Amino acid sequence: MSEIQPTERTKIRRRPERGVFDRAAVYAIIDEALVAHVGVSVNDEPRVIPTAIIRVGDHVYIHGSQSNQLLSTLAGGAPACITITLVDSIVAGRSGFGMSMDYRSVVIFAKAEVVEDMAEKERLVAAFIEDILPGHVVRPPKAKELNATVFLRFPIEEASAKIRDKGVVDPADDIALDLWAGVIPLRMTAGAPRNCKDLRPGIETPDYAKTYARPRG
Amino acid sequence: MSEIQPTERTKIRRRPERGVFDRAAVYAIIDEALVAHVGVSVNDEPRVIPTAIIRVGDHVYIHGSQSNQLLSTLAGGAPACITITLVDSIVAGRSGFGMSMDYRSVVIFAKAEVVEDMAEKERLVAAFIEDILPGHVVRPPKAKELNATVFLRFPIEEASAKIRDKGVVDPADDIALDLWAGVIPLRMTAGAPRNCKDLRPGIETPDYAKTYARPRG
Repeated sequence: MSEIQPTERTKIRRRPERGVFDRAAVYAIIDEALVAHVGVSVNDEPRVIPTAIIRVGDHVYIHGSQSNQLLSTLAGGAPACITITLVDSIVAGRSGFGMSMDYRSVVIFAKAEVVEDMAEKERLVAAFIEDILPGHVVRPPKAKELNATVFLRFPIEEASAKIRDKGVVDPADDIALDLWAGVIPLRMTAGAPRNCKDLRPGIETPDYAKTYARPRG
Repeated sequence: MSEIQPTERTKIRRRPERGVFDRAAVYAIIDEALVAHVGVSVNDEPRVIPTAIIRVGDHVYIHGSQSNQLLSTLAGGAPACITITLVDSIVAGRSGFGMSMDYRSVVIFAKAEVVEDMAEKERLVAAFIEDILPGHVVRPPKAKELNATVFLRFPIEEASAKIRDKGVVDPADDIALDLWAGVIPLRMTAGAPRNCKDLRPGIETPDYAKTYARPRG
């Protein structure tokens, strides 16, 4: 896959060794995440809202109700900053300044395109389900549900990832101290599924729910 | 604890039943989170950056290098939107529109106050460690490290939480379908700690690292 071209906003100023513009690496981070934090400027003041996000090809998609203010603002052409963060571990160094986290993050600057086509909206409903809970079977969407839902598409063009994965980096003076240092890995894990209380009798909890894990297989 | 007063920006327009202004509830969400997404507007365009966050009393704090652009912008008086999100479960309804997530989020609108006092900066170093990895022992900070680090304080005044915790909410028509529906709980879990490769011989992996969990005890 191609490299993404850095821009004035996405070039990594501090610690450029953490900057990643490889599409495959950027896409892997987006695909592992359940939610993004979407920023928009309203009267030169920031608003940041969490929302589910998926990637299809070279675009990311968010969606929500027609009455959602953030979506309306974005649909109107306001520039967005979409940030996705995965915290991979706590880095416990031997000083406060050696404390850190290993993480992977992506920032996308883009303007929204509103998805109008009903067939595409229906495909996106299926894509969101397949992203969030692969294998889950639902009834088909109704036209009024599709009409009431706004889907926004953003091109992954002005984008970059930052990856910190080097663990503890203490100077020699600190390494000489009689202090523990190390890394505690973190991950999102799924517990046992709970059936809906009004589930019809005889319906079993499906395997895709029992074995759920992120990142998706 | 007192209620936070809603403002034009923090009152919950859609689904007001999800809005929470109780300080204890808001603080519990902040305290469980490791990172926040901080938004700032630059030339009326949004930037959203993930960063570690802690709460001390009625303020939240972030910190970083003096050369960090986001911190410089905020230190210069730019309004911030600080958003914290905890995803608690995947909600698998019987339609695409019944798919959701249970989550808890907090949004704080505030301007930064720069922490200048060296003793307070030193206390904040300790507070960040105690928040991120309780019990971890480090050497004291050096003056040059404190000088090179910017700590920003934000009052928790214009703030609100949103909580969705109701699981599947399908209409009767959908409940009648022969489809599974339920909730898959998610949580951040810690794996076995890995000692730093240059750890001094004889230093044991401490219990606080072996038994690490969020939220903090």
